[in-house]
Amino acid sequence: MDQRREPRDSAPGTPVRAGVPEHGRVPKYYAVKGQLETLLDELGEGGALPTERDLAARFGVARETLRQALRDLLIEGRVRRRGRGTVVAGPKLEQPLSLVSYTEGVRRQGRTPGRSLIGLDRIAAGDELGDQLGIGPHGLVWHLERVLLADDERVGLESTYVSVDRFPHLERDFDPDSSFYTFLREVARVRFAAADERIETVLATPREALLVGTPPALPMLLLHRVSRDETGTPVERVRSLYRGDRFSFTTQLSPQG
Amino acid sequence: MDQRREPRDSAPGTPVRAGVPEHGRVPKYYAVKGQLETLLDELGEGGALPTERDLAARFGVARETLRQALRDLLIEGRVRRRGRGTVVAGPKLEQPLSLVSYTEGVRRQGRTPGRSLIGLDRIAAGDELGDQLGIGPHGLVWHLERVLLADDERVGLESTYVSVDRFPHLERDFDPDSSFYTFLREVARVRFAAADERIETVLATPREALLVGTPPALPMLLLHRVSRDETGTPVERVRSLYRGDRFSFTTQLSPQG
Repeated sequence: MDQRREPRDSAPGTPVRAGVPEHGRVPKYYAVKGQLETLLDELGEGGALPTERDLAARFGVARETLRQALRDLLIEGRVRRRGRGTVVAGPKLEQPLSLVSYTEGVRRQGRTPGRSLIGLDRIAAGDELGDQLGIGPHGLVWHLERVLLADDERVGLESTYVSVDRFPHLERDFDPDSSFYTFLREVARVRFAAADERIETVLATPREALLVGTPPALPMLLLHRVSRDETGTPVERVRSLYRGDRFSFTTQLSPQG
Repeated sequence: MDQRREPRDSAPGTPVRAGVPEHGRVPKYYAVKGQLETLLDELGEGGALPTERDLAARFGVARETLRQALRDLLIEGRVRRRGRGTVVAGPKLEQPLSLVSYTEGVRRQGRTPGRSLIGLDRIAAGDELGDQLGIGPHGLVWHLERVLLADDERVGLESTYVSVDRFPHLERDFDPDSSFYTFLREVARVRFAAADERIETVLATPREALLVGTPPALPMLLLHRVSRDETGTPVERVRSLYRGDRFSFTTQLSPQG
């Protein structure tokens, strides 16, 4: 789970062969980060860190060096801000990469999923989306945008696009605080057969950072999905942005997969 | 593909419902970034950007503002350094999340895969790895660490751990410049049946940044994998770090997946 606890660091062996020579020195902030990580382990999840001033004094470094180390730990999700202080964060959520919805994935981890509506708009599809949904550039789509919550913590931002022709009364039939997958399955009677998914890391835009409540330019995990029903017709195009410090994604692969 | 070309930006519709109010202003560097993106589209892949001084003058902003915008574009992989200049980058590589190896995945995209050995060590497994490979903490493992290349460009760093008991003569039988999957399948006669995979975003450590040749603290995509053979025995534990600005991962989901 933690890259700095790989066995190569804890129990280096005798090199049998080596190609690329190792060189370079460890920057000071990075050494401090290692000391802080030991401290985090001692404090345990939820434990409060001493003040920056105290930590800088303890490690004998400048405040700016200490801040750089803390910034790394914040981006990686090892620590979190709480009020004016900093506490040890819990492990990242592990969300399955599957046709299971966000709602179900979060529930499986014992957290309470939630959503907060930003907007439900009717827009022209345009070239890319019209192509992905198979409705042409002039087709109308619903754009449903919501903040994703886990135990009231904002963890992501999701945009879903579906054809207005296929779901003409979405604004009336769908409760935006509920699971859209449950709506599609139980109300609209969609049977999902397959999905193409792509995952990448991006920086949060200022708008996204504002909506999700993250520091600007925090690395995020971006999932693109096009789901199809049993007739092969595209049902939805989803763009889900998850906090990189709070989420990881899991999948099980098989030789066919 | 590009989050800033979603239809909500190009063709905003009339809000039918809106929950969270939008507010906040766009930072200056971010507006410059948008102007730069338009310029990148005009220049096309491989096109050279004007100097920072010229760009700052063109947009009427301070050099530091321009640099912040360029830094974002660099981290996101929209531009790349070439020599002392900056050029428009191509799209991210799309690597399948499947039991297909790195080698095969890169070949499918018409690039030439390569590897550069960093080290092949024999180490004690320790608790976590011993558990994952089912050999206990005192079992010996091979640690094979290589830089991953695509067309001679360094794109990632891979650590593979396998049991020494199972592959006693790896240092003799395996050519570290070749595909390890091909070795496992064709020489060691391993038949892969399944793998658990986890993907997250992390910052490159100074050592990793040095080996992969990225700027320090570039967001990376980290894949953890444990593969099992047809008897259910764990074969390998892999930790693959890919440049977040150069890679995305794709998968096809089915209701069983």
